Amino acid sequence: MDALGRHILAEVFGCDHDTLNNPQKIEKIMVDAALKAGAEIREVAFHKFSPMGVSGVVIISESHLAIHTWPELGYAALDVFTCGDAVDPWVACNDIVENFHAENVTATESRRGIFNTPYGKDDLG
Amino acid sequence: MDALGRHILAEVFGCDHDTLNNPQKIEKIMVDAALKAGAEIREVAFHKFSPMGVSGVVIISESHLAIHTWPELGYAALDVFTCGDAVDPWVACNDIVENFHAENVTATESRRGIFNTPYGKDDLG
Repeated sequence: MDALGRHILAEVFGCDHDTLNNPQKIEKIMVDAALKAGAEIREVAFHKFSPMGVSGVVIISESHLAIHTWPELGYAALDVFTCGDAVDPWVACNDIVENFHAENVTATESRRGIFNTPYGKDDLG
Repeated sequence: MDALGRHILAEVFGCDHDTLNNPQKIEKIMVDAALKAGAEIREVAFHKFSPMGVSGVVIISESHLAIHTWPELGYAALDVFTCGDAVDPWVACNDIVENFHAENVTATESRRGIFNTPYGKDDLG
């Protein structure tokens, strides 16, 4: 049974406060991590909340990376979802965690789009 | 133990092909679903792939909704992540699934950002 993609949900604790409240810095970290993993960037959207916190998404050809930060808690909810075999989501995830100077991380990987033919190729036109 | 948010990963099968390949229609379905759930829209980014498939994200004040579609497989990978108690992610998820005319869905809910104080309030400034 093959899956179209792999989706990491990472709970990132003990991060640097200033980084988690800086949308430009987070955007650069996320984009750089996606590129480091070999992904192709398609769209980027980030938003800074008042009084603090950042949400952002990097849409890549292979799916997306998403982040929501709570600087006051040193916490970030990070998603890295990649499809295909060319891009390893853990490369991007680990790079982001390192740049956030996280103290600890809990991450799970879910397989998305499982079909009983390789990538559903029998159904592809 | 309280969680900051709830994150639904939904595997949506047997969807309408034309809907899954129409970025404008998907964007409207996603935005309408977010609003129906009571969320506040912050950023919207959608991308159409060649020859087919759509990826898109709606950033809301309460986190995000994301979609990746494979029209040729009738499949969509849907995420609905909401924080706080005001917005129920299942309202948005169910609304999207209904509008995709899905035949079947497998969905899991993950709790994100679990702290041992209510919403980490002891740490909030």
